[in-house]
Order: sequence, then C-alpha cells, then structure tokens
Amino acid sequence: MCLMVKCALCVHLIYSDIVQRSREELKAIRETNPGLKPTLAIIQVCLCAIEEILRLNEDSRVYGIFLHLPQSFLSKSVRNAIKPQKDVDGDIEISRAQTPKPISQLAQEVGLLPEELEAYGNTKAKVHLSLLNRLQHQPNGKYVLVAGITPTPLGEGKSTVTIGLVQALSAHLKLNSFACLRQPSQGPTFGVKGGAAGGGYAQVIPMEEFNLHLTGDIHAITAANNLVAAAIDARILHEATQSDKALYSRLVPSVNGVRCFSPIQMARLQRLGINKSDPSDLTPEEVRAFVRLDLDPEKVTWQRVIDTNDRFLRKITVGQANTEKGNARQTQFDIAVASEIMAILALTDGLADMRARLGRMVVGSSRNGQPITADDLGVTGALAVLMKDAIKPTLMQTLEGTPVFVHAGPFANIAHGNSSVLADKLALKLVGEEGFVVTEAGFGADIGMEKFFNIKCRTSGLKPDVVVLVATVRALKMHGGGPNVTAGVPLPKEYISENLQLVADGCSNLKKQIQIAHLFGVPVVVALNAFKTDTQAEIDLVCRIAEASGASAAVQCHHWSRGGRGSVELAQAVKKVASQKNYFQFLYNLQDSVVEKIRTIAQKVYGADDIELSPEAQAKIDYYNQQGFGALPICMAKTHLSLSHMPEKKGVPTGFILPIRDIRASIGAGFIYPLVGTMSTMPGLPTRPCFYDIDLDPVTEEIKGLF
Amino acid sequence: MCLMVKCALCVHLIYSDIVQRSREELKAIRETNPGLKPTLAIIQVCLCAIEEILRLNEDSRVYGIFLHLPQSFLSKSVRNAIKPQKDVDGDIEISRAQTPKPISQLAQEVGLLPEELEAYGNTKAKVHLSLLNRLQHQPNGKYVLVAGITPTPLGEGKSTVTIGLVQALSAHLKLNSFACLRQPSQGPTFGVKGGAAGGGYAQVIPMEEFNLHLTGDIHAITAANNLVAAAIDARILHEATQSDKALYSRLVPSVNGVRCFSPIQMARLQRLGINKSDPSDLTPEEVRAFVRLDLDPEKVTWQRVIDTNDRFLRKITVGQANTEKGNARQTQFDIAVASEIMAILALTDGLADMRARLGRMVVGSSRNGQPITADDLGVTGALAVLMKDAIKPTLMQTLEGTPVFVHAGPFANIAHGNSSVLADKLALKLVGEEGFVVTEAGFGADIGMEKFFNIKCRTSGLKPDVVVLVATVRALKMHGGGPNVTAGVPLPKEYISENLQLVADGCSNLKKQIQIAHLFGVPVVVALNAFKTDTQAEIDLVCRIAEASGASAAVQCHHWSRGGRGSVELAQAVKKVASQKNYFQFLYNLQDSVVEKIRTIAQKVYGADDIELSPEAQAKIDYYNQQGFGALPICMAKTHLSLSHMPEKKGVPTGFILPIRDIRASIGAGFIYPLVGTMSTMPGLPTRPCFYDIDLDPVTEEIKGLF
Repeated sequence: MCLMVKCALCVHLIYSDIVQRSREELKAIRETNPGLKPTLAIIQVCLCAIEEILRLNEDSRVYGIFLHLPQSFLSKSVRNAIKPQKDVDGDIEISRAQTPKPISQLAQEVGLLPEELEAYGNTKAKVHLSLLNRLQHQPNGKYVLVAGITPTPLGEGKSTVTIGLVQALSAHLKLNSFACLRQPSQGPTFGVKGGAAGGGYAQVIPMEEFNLHLTGDIHAITAANNLVAAAIDARILHEATQSDKALYSRLVPSVNGVRCFSPIQMARLQRLGINKSDPSDLTPEEVRAFVRLDLDPEKVTWQRVIDTNDRFLRKITVGQANTEKGNARQTQFDIAVASEIMAILALTDGLADMRARLGRMVVGSSRNGQPITADDLGVTGALAVLMKDAIKPTLMQTLEGTPVFVHAGPFANIAHGNSSVLADKLALKLVGEEGFVVTEAGFGADIGMEKFFNIKCRTSGLKPDVVVLVATVRALKMHGGGPNVTAGVPLPKEYISENLQLVADGCSNLKKQIQIAHLFGVPVVVALNAFKTDTQAEIDLVCRIAEASGASAAVQCHHWSRGGRGSVELAQAVKKVASQKNYFQFLYNLQDSVVEKIRTIAQKVYGADDIELSPEAQAKIDYYNQQGFGALPICMAKTHLSLSHMPEKKGVPTGFILPIRDIRASIGAGFIYPLVGTMSTMPGLPTRPCFYDIDLDPVTEEIKGLF
Repeated sequence: MCLMVKCALCVHLIYSDIVQRSREELKAIRETNPGLKPTLAIIQVCLCAIEEILRLNEDSRVYGIFLHLPQSFLSKSVRNAIKPQKDVDGDIEISRAQTPKPISQLAQEVGLLPEELEAYGNTKAKVHLSLLNRLQHQPNGKYVLVAGITPTPLGEGKSTVTIGLVQALSAHLKLNSFACLRQPSQGPTFGVKGGAAGGGYAQVIPMEEFNLHLTGDIHAITAANNLVAAAIDARILHEATQSDKALYSRLVPSVNGVRCFSPIQMARLQRLGINKSDPSDLTPEEVRAFVRLDLDPEKVTWQRVIDTNDRFLRKITVGQANTEKGNARQTQFDIAVASEIMAILALTDGLADMRARLGRMVVGSSRNGQPITADDLGVTGALAVLMKDAIKPTLMQTLEGTPVFVHAGPFANIAHGNSSVLADKLALKLVGEEGFVVTEAGFGADIGMEKFFNIKCRTSGLKPDVVVLVATVRALKMHGGGPNVTAGVPLPKEYISENLQLVADGCSNLKKQIQIAHLFGVPVVVALNAFKTDTQAEIDLVCRIAEASGASAAVQCHHWSRGGRGSVELAQAVKKVASQKNYFQFLYNLQDSVVEKIRTIAQKVYGADDIELSPEAQAKIDYYNQQGFGALPICMAKTHLSLSHMPEKKGVPTGFILPIRDIRASIGAGFIYPLVGTMSTMPGLPTRPCFYDIDLDPVTEEIKGLF
C-alpha cells in the first residue's frame, strides 16, 4: 500500500510505501486535522531503519511518520496514485473533478531538485536541462513508442493509450514511468471539438491548461518565427531603397567614433570568404556582398505563423501600405506548430545546438541562388533569447497523478510529428533503469513511427525497446471495406454491430504496420483500444490475427472508462517485451542519395512500386545536393489516411507509384521534406465553431464546454 | 530593525524578533540541518512582546529570531531591502548583477497568502483577484500618479522616477509601497534600443523577463484578438456561401435528435427581439435575422494583431486562396498592445466585468448599419477563457527588492496608456492606509494624466492623492527653443552645456502641465530627473520656477545612478503632500455631448481655441449618439510631442484649432477616441535592428545586448 508522509523540512508531501496504515485510520486522522492534508507525521527515522519502521507500523499509537529521504532516493520512489473521481461525464468534467497534486510535490516524487523546477502556477512547471548533467551517469529506462494503424478521420486513441499505459505502469505495477506528449496547437481548440490531452479516465490534467497557453512555448515560437519574417521583409525594403554605402553605414554604425562588426556580422563575413575584421578595410565589392542579402522576393520560403485557425490568412498580400514603397508580395500564414522552429525545438539537444540550428534555418534564396539564413539576417541570438524558456520541457500529470512531460508539437505532415528529444532524454534519466518512458508518434505508424525512428532516434541516439501499436475495431472494419467514416456524422451500422468479416479483412493494415516496425528490428505489442460497441469475438479475432502476424503480444485496453486499471494487461505485456533483446536499425543510410532514401520509404514502408519525381522535385534535389544538404534524413509529407498517397485507399494498397510533387527543406531542423500531394498548413473555422459552447464562470472560474 | 529569519516549517523567509538563541546553538542547528540555509531562528514568541524584541535587539548573542506572524499582520510588515551590486555598467548588467529575492518570499513580505500566488518561475508570479475580497475592509493606501511634461522623442524617465520613488519609499523611508507599471510590448524590444523596465539603478528585475514573454498576458491578448478576427472572416465566408436554412441547421444542429440554442445564441435572439427558445418556432424571417450577421466587409473595424514590429502588415489583403472563394478584402495588423482587449484588461475590475466588456466589443457593422459585437459572433466565452490568467496582475520586484505589479499596457495614443485598474486596487489594499502606490501614465501629462483621471479613475472610482510631474533639463531646453532632439543622433551642444535662458523659457511647458493637474484638483510634486550634464544652476532654476508655478514641491532625483537613495528627497516630498487634503474632480461630465467633451479637453488641456470636426467625424458622432454610445468618456488620439496636434510646436502653443480627422469607438473598453492626425499602430524594424547585438550564452544562459 502506498502511504503519504510529510517531509519534515519542506512540508511537501512525499510518498513512501514503507509504512502502512489502514484507510480508516488515515481517514480519521484527516478529519481531526483538517489543516494537515491529508496525513500526518510524527516520528523521524532514518531510512535504513526499515525494521524500526515496520515495528512502528504495528504500533497503534503511530499514525504516520516524518521521513527524511536524501534527494537521490527520490527518483526511485514509487509515485502516489490519485484515484479519479467517478460518476462525472465529459472530459473536462472528469478532469475538473480530480484535484491535481501540487506540481512541486510531483516534481519531488520523480526526483527533481527544487532548483531544477520552475513552477508555472500549481499544476505545471518547467524543468531545467541541468538535470541531464546531474543524472548523466544514471542508466536510461526503457523507451516505448506508441504508434497506430492507419486511422479513421476520428483518430484511434494513441494519446489515451499512452496515458492509460503510464497510469497502469506507475500506479498499478509500481514502476517508475513517464509519458512524453506533444503540446497541442491552441488554434484548433476553438474550431472543431476534440482535444489532445487524452480523454475519459486517461487524461492529462488540468486539461484546459494542457490545451490552452500551457507555459507559453507555442507563443514563443510564434514570436521567434514572426521576428524572422519581419526581418526578411524589412531587409528587402531597406536594400531596395538604400545605396550600398548607406546600408553599410547603418549596419556598421560609428558608436562613439568607433565602427565594428558584431559577432554575427563577423560570421557572415567568414561565410562570404572575407577575412577582415576592420570595417574600413572592406573593398566596395566586399561591402556590397556584405550588405546585400539580395533576397529574391519570389523565393522567400519563410512564412509567418499564428496559433489561430484563420483560413483567410492562407494566401495574402503584404506590404501594401505606402510606407513599404511598392514592395508588396504574396505570402501566407501557417498555423504556429508548422513553424520550422517547432521542429527544431522537438529535435534539439540543448541551448547551444538550438542556437546553431536556428542560425542555419534557410529563409529563401538570393537572386543568384544562394541560400539565405537566419544568421545572414543577424537574428539568431534574438531567436535563442525568445526560445530560452521554451526549450525546457513542461511537467504535468495524468489523472492518476503520474508524471507527464509535454514538450513540442511539430506538425505531423510537413514535419516529423513527434514530441521533443529533450523531454524523452530527461524522462529516461528520471525513471531510471527499471523505469519506462512512453512517447507518442503522430498519425499512423507508416508516418509517425517511421519518422520517429529515422529522424528522431537518429538525432537523439536513443534506441526504442518496444512499439505499442494502437488499433481499433472501428478502423479495422474501415480497412476491411466498411463504409466511409466522417467526423460529425453518426457512424454507419457496420461499426456498431458485430462484423467479423470486415474485422478480419481489415487486419491487413494492422499486419502491414507490424511488419513496418519489424523492418526497424523493434518488437510490437498491439493495444486494441476497446469501445463499448466492440464484441468479444471481434476483440479476440484481432488479438489472434495480431499475434499470428508477428506481434509479441496483443491485448485489449479499457483506459478510457477505467483509467490505469483498464491498461494493466497492456502494461504487463509491454514490461515483458521490453526486457527482450532487440535489434534496432535505421531503414536507410544518410549517405544514400535523396532519391534512394525516398524510394526506400515509398517501397518498404508504403508498399509503392516506385516513386515519380516532378520536374520541380528533381530540380530541388539537384539544388540541395549542390548546397550540401543531400545527406539529411527524409521527412515525408503524405496523407495519414492511407498507406498510399490516396486517402481513399484503405487496407494495404499495392501497385501504385508515389508521386513526389515538390521537395522542401528545413535545414535548421535538419530534414528534407518531399510533398506527396497538397498539405494544408492552416486549418479553418467551421460554420459553428465549438467556441459557441465554451464559457468561463466568472465566480467559480470554471471553464465550461471545452471538449 | 529589519531582520531576515526563516520559518522553521516552510523554509521561506519571514520577519521576526521574538525569540533568541545563542550563536552557538544556531550554529549547531544549522550544521545538523544543512538544508536550512542560511541562518537561524529558534524560538517562538507572541507578537505583542515588542519590548522584548527591542531588548533582544541589543543582545549581542542574538543574531536572529523566528517569528510566527498571523498572515493578517504581514501586509503591514516592512519589506526587506536588497542592496544593488555596484560597479557594473549597462542596464542588463546591473539587472543581472542583482540576485532577485525568491518571488514567494516577496509575496509573503507584502502580505499575500500562498494560495493567492501562482509563481511563474522564481522571479515572477500571478496574484489572485480573491485578495480583493479578503482585504475588502482594509483602507486603501495613498495613490500617486507619475506623469511628465511634454517629452523629447527620447523620453524623460517616468518609469525610472516611478521605480526610484518606490525604492526610496520602501527601502529607505520604510513605508509600504508598490509600483504599478505597464507591461511593454515585446515587438519593439528587437527594433530600436530602449526598454520599459526603467534603467540604471531604478529597474524592475530581471529586466529580460519584464521585456520578453513575462507571464504571457500579451500572448493571450493576441490569441483572443485573432480568434475574433478569424471568426469574423469565416462568418462572412459562411454567410456568403450558404442558404439561411443551411446556416441555421449548422448553427443550431440536432444533437442526438435535439436542437437547442446555446446561451450566447439565446442572448442574440433577445437582442433581436425574438422571445423564443425552441429552434423550431422561428419564422423564416426570424431565422434569417438570427443566422445572418450580414457584416459589411467594408465596415469591419476589427483588426488582427501581432507582437512583432512587422511593417509589411500595415496594409494587407487577406482571403486570396481559392478556398475563400473570392472573399478577399484589405485589412491590417496592429501591434498587439493596440488591441481593444488590452484596453479592456487595463480597465476591468474582475472576471464578470471583463467577460461582459469582451462581449460588447463592436467589430464592425452590418450592411444596414447595425453594430455587430463579439457576442453576435458567439465568441465571448472563448475570449474570457483565453484571458482567464491574463486578468491576474504579475508581481515582480525592483532592483532593491520592493514590490512591483506589472499589468496591462494599452497603447497611449489610440487607447488610454495606463496600467491596470486591478493592479492598482490590489496594491492599494496590500500597502495599507499608511502605504503608497505609485502608478505611471504614458506620454505627457496632457495625454496620459488626463486619461488617467477622466477614464481610468472614473472607471475605478479611485482618487489620486498626488501627481509627480517628471521634467528634465533637456526637455525644458527643447521647449525653450533648443534645436531638435532626434533619437540615434548625438545631442546638440545646447543640451550638454549650461543654458539658463533655454531652461527658463522652456518652463512654460512645465507650468502648463502643473496647471492641467490643478484643473483636476490634485497637488503636484515636480521631479527633476537629473542628468550628469545638468548644472546646479539649471536644476535650481527649474525647481524655483516649478514652485512659483504652483507645484507643492520640486526636487531633483538621482535614482538612475544611485537607486532609491537618489530619490529620498522626492519620497519625502510625496509623503508630505499626500497627507494634505485634495479636491479631485473630473474635467467633464459623461452626460455632456461628445462635441462638448472633446472641446473641453482641447481648450482646457491643450490650449486650443476650438475644435474642427471633419464630415466623417461628425457623421460618426451622429452614429454613436444614435447607437447610445454618446455617454462614454473621450480618449484623445493625439501626438505626445506637443500640447497641440503639431509635433513641432514646443512650449505652450496657442491660437490653434484642433482638427478632429475621424472618430472611433472601443465599446468594450468603454471610450470614444477622436483621431487628431494619423496614428501609426504598427512600428517597423530599422535597417540595423538591435537584434544584431542580442545573444544568449548557451552555457551560462545569460542574455547579452538586451538594452
């Protein structure tokens, strides 16, 4: 049994299962000591005195202890599970019915020192990266990826499986575990219903914090992204309206009679091959090369971003005021999470690396075809300053009081769709060798998992131990030939009554996704996310086929309705499979040609016969090779609704050629992204956005109608 | 005596004097409790034993005390002053050289309960509005406004005077005091050098937190503002492309076979005079009136905002993508602090009032001339949810460890340019009857102070006790006929050598601003912000003329170089004048006609002979009167560089007619704003933005080059 005791020094609750008391005794103590929530502590003991504790435990006069634990012990302590309130409906109501633990308490439970924490209110906190240094000799825990089969447009519950799994591991199997989740974009929160905090009894709480501003990371990304955009257009204007000399005297002004280059200007000079440090030494040609980025307005690839579903910003013309002197040009806003800076946040391993990646971001090209970077604009340092807090992962908790890192949420189509490397690394140290870190990849396994392995793991150097592949009877029926599934429309009858044939046929997709994971040498546990309309025969069928298809285990999960208890079987399977040896490998080598890398993914993962490059795509590949970008990994921008590029093709499509329409590059993030079809990077609001139902009670401050 | 002691339980510093221990005993305790940094405190006593404390104070064996103070005592406690590190140059270096007190400690010192605080890291925290309820019977402290003479483009140091004054009051005169400051816009931080955190030894620290994201309020405003904008354009598109019936079935959908209006839709029905609650009861005409806001795209007044200096967004065309089906229109982005939501944040007195104001915001008008509000769009509740944390003021500290509220920062030209009513109210309760709250108004007194009295005090019901009017020899010389002062250009010699004639002549502006304050019945203390180039004769001359012009006192201040010590004389003068009776009154009645109100301000404050309305302005007045908006106060949008509308006219211009070019209204914020000339609401980046010098050290995490 798990018992709360008080740390004598800091009045924060910590947990121990050393001493036991009955529920009734605790209740009585609590009632007579209303200030001392929830328990008390009387005697101080030293940790080694286990016998003494056990003896005290039998002493009816003792009802609690003060326990001085050295901080180093805390990362091994078993966390306290808090029990969800039952009998409430709706995700926000379930979330609100649960009082979260103070975040400082959770931080202590997971082994953080007070100085490693920056609380943001009482339910969320930033964690310092210095932790990585302190725990550098701590072995990593097990690394579990939650991926999914090709989903319906409704999603199949990867987030809830992730949360249910850590709740089961922590609160029920008593294993240290951490969930690492993506931060959702705030924009869609006010569009169509549906949150990213999980749901039911497998949620991150408070869910409104998770879904709204959180600790401001996306706002920081927006500010940094848009500073780059403002710098680009202002620079184009200033270059268009000033002589070389005027530009030079402004860019390198005389301050108290002295002119000198700033460090970032020195770096540009070096890139230009000008090895001079005295501004008066430059020749007119060198001055011209230095002051003129000569950005081609037609070839600016950097776009502004906003964290709002604002469809009218999909194509806009900027610079139409008189003050911009005729330099108007057409451009667009993307949703903030589509910013390359978000992808950098997700892939970086620290401040120095982030700063370097920000500086390398290519924002467009000059009229003579040279890539122009954030470093060329002189803006790198300011971007790093704007992002200095965002780089720290945010600690929150599940509905059962187990720890969660929320950090970064890059778009899963034009970027890699995985939460941050840093959060995973911190969590793997915190859980320790016997612990588990469960992280989630966006979309189906053919996209999110492939990018997790080939991009994220390659960057981080981390090796995954198990893939949990989420399936639903609903999605399998769709793959087996069931009618269309559309958001906002009632499900056709095939999905709410037993149909074993559809399920059996649809398992082709499940089998293929298992095989994809095996290409990387990682074992698979299939988690069947059970709905109340699923029959036992359907569930058994899926599990049988999954195991026959090579899954190490296949189990049903009921976390939505039962919380961690509903995922104990999954947790046990994951624990068992994680202890087996595995043979992780990448699917391609970075040194393969860009075309080879794309073809490998298309054929081995998607099942395409071949790829077909448009002339634009071929020209871009030539350009990237020439610029030395050819050795980057590939981040496919493909629909998630089919293994192929055709969303309507369910199951396992074959006999198709994957068309590569265009290719782009995120040089700072460090990948090349081929576009297969058109990716929308700005959602819109429907006729009746869900904000019609959202409100704030001015007295209780409770939020209504959010999900 | 002011002594730091530790609370035995919570390791937070509190104040005390009651119990003693020998140095040896304390040392022993300390050694056996290494967690208890840095001192002392052993015995508990009761507060009434003042004599005992004083006796202990003389006892050389005692060097610390534990004191358990009831929380209610804490708001009267004297704060602990921290001494600035000297011998560092540059604002950020001075800021960084000082280690701020933990914000939880400061909160406790000023009398906040732990549950009233939400820390955001260790140097800033949000304060709950519930405090107003807890301290409702506490008398308010003195209320001091810092305003200025008509400034040069460089600014004359109102922020530093404000901070220097509270440092002197708190740390030197031992009076409870609070500074209330505006949150600066982040955009300009990366444009032209110059922060809003004060400077030198009169700063808010950490200044980089103050100037960057802070606690996310401006980001929240941006999100809320842009949700309204997205809702407007999406609604125009949906109305343009759907029949009444389709709109109605989407806006009032059948959920599980039941259709019903949401509360915000019921409110719209009532405004339309339709007293029905069953969606099936509406006639086709009523359906049409309900579903069609019929916004005239030409008459949308709501604009998008962004907290970046992005001049290319001053005039843009949105909606050019095919998905927007030809509904492109021209619009603009403003800097975020220009949002009406910022003005609402500054004027609201609580959640219910904020929600109501957000709902009343007029975003444009329908084709038949009816104002359309956020309530009509159905977005009010979502806005309140986005703003739920922003409504709580942020607690920070000065360089000397005295408390500061940072909250709201509405534009000083198109809005009222004052920090929030709520921060002032909280601070007035916290300092108690003998304490002081010092708040600042933007621009010169003719603008910021006039709006402070006529708009902010009228809204809040608070009565100011003293005006501190900031003057500099530099600005007075400019008013006396000195050459132009331009940012970024060295000052002409008149400004760096003695010139008594220019000073004497320029005091006309100072005298006029004193008279303006007296119109409102509030006494004036002139604070001459001394520069090292000022001569004693110049300083004495200004003080003499100021007192002869009716100022209750006129003193020189050296807070920039000396911190609070440099403003002790000012603090003493303010303390003295604040104890005198005053006769505060408004300049006009709300029931006066709009034209009368504008004329009163133009004549009595600016010294104009009369006003002249453009036909547009006259038409707007007629429209506002017809809509029932005529009884709102007036928020003049005028240049701050002259008492007149002509920036080049210094001193006290006379014989001019004030032209009213146009008139707009912020119905949610609650004022009408006549435009005198063209106000830029989007700054730009110069050729060499200051981001060239800004950087982050990846190892120390120190910021370089910010101001």
